[in-house]
Amino acid sequence: MARRGSYAKGVARREEILESALDVIGRKGYQNASLKEIAEVVGVTPAALLHYFGSKEELFTEVLRKRDEHDGLDPSALSADDARGAFLDVIRHNTEVPGLVALFSRLAVDAADPAHPAHPYFLDRSARLRESIADNFGGEQQPSALDPDTLARVIQAVSDGLQLQWMIDPTVDMPGIMAALIDALLPPTAPGP
Amino acid sequence: MARRGSYAKGVARREEILESALDVIGRKGYQNASLKEIAEVVGVTPAALLHYFGSKEELFTEVLRKRDEHDGLDPSALSADDARGAFLDVIRHNTEVPGLVALFSRLAVDAADPAHPAHPYFLDRSARLRESIADNFGGEQQPSALDPDTLARVIQAVSDGLQLQWMIDPTVDMPGIMAALIDALLPPTAPGP
Repeated sequence: MARRGSYAKGVARREEILESALDVIGRKGYQNASLKEIAEVVGVTPAALLHYFGSKEELFTEVLRKRDEHDGLDPSALSADDARGAFLDVIRHNTEVPGLVALFSRLAVDAADPAHPAHPYFLDRSARLRESIADNFGGEQQPSALDPDTLARVIQAVSDGLQLQWMIDPTVDMPGIMAALIDALLPPTAPGP
Repeated sequence: MARRGSYAKGVARREEILESALDVIGRKGYQNASLKEIAEVVGVTPAALLHYFGSKEELFTEVLRKRDEHDGLDPSALSADDARGAFLDVIRHNTEVPGLVALFSRLAVDAADPAHPAHPYFLDRSARLRESIADNFGGEQQPSALDPDTLARVIQAVSDGLQLQWMIDPTVDMPGIMAALIDALLPPTAPGP
């Protein structure tokens, strides 16, 4: 029982560190921070960070996973009715957490190396995001000129690509451009009788 | 005259180094290479690289500029008739130079820092690319549901975003997805009488 209690405490402590890292990175950015600097702002020792995550790259990858949880990326979390609104809300929220947008983009590049801890994360996230988009946009109710998988890849690409533009020029209207594209590819259908 | 001759030689030598770096990076990648490693594969001394470019970041930025020259990114280089084909050719060519795609993506992220030498490059490239897209796609001949600036931002975002997907999963069909999107947003018009 003592062991089980200590395991549960470890899980809780790991969660606390993740939530704290998510908050700090969102507000202040990660700016190529060292493990020591991250530990300091999160309020733990570098040894504790390594104990719970193994490396800085693993911690960063888990921060992105935790963010996806908060953003409700899973297909089941969106209903068809509010998929467009929920998706645009995530993009709007991103404009308030520039540090997470920068971390996501940087890790997306680094993860091209199959040995990087974020490589499986990005493969998996991409598959889930496409499933979510294919389930919630298009379909018989809302026909598109693009097949569901192509539509999903395009929406994902625009989301990631607009972030690169926005990081260099923060006046780029990410949610406005995405809304215009969704409306162009998926014209709203008249409500049924 | 001697000075002028020596200046011209310097310009020519700088060009040679750039072309060599463009070729080597395209084929072998840049893989976080040190200045010393880059100098070695390009076939010059690290001191020569610093003399001509000032820093590794400046060299990388100039490599991307040189690539744009080769790709004919300037608006004047495309005629309206073959804009779609020329644009897709560039994307097809990109699949053969993974090292340049990786370098471009990594610098796009790093350039978010206004002090990075690639920051003005990306701002300027983005403006020229949008001008090129607005001039060559859409317009009265080929009306789109998106206004020209939004259309340009979307096409640029899809291009950059598909690269992130492709680096992680090389089976992603970048030219095929882009072609489908252009056709969906800009349906080919029937030839006039």
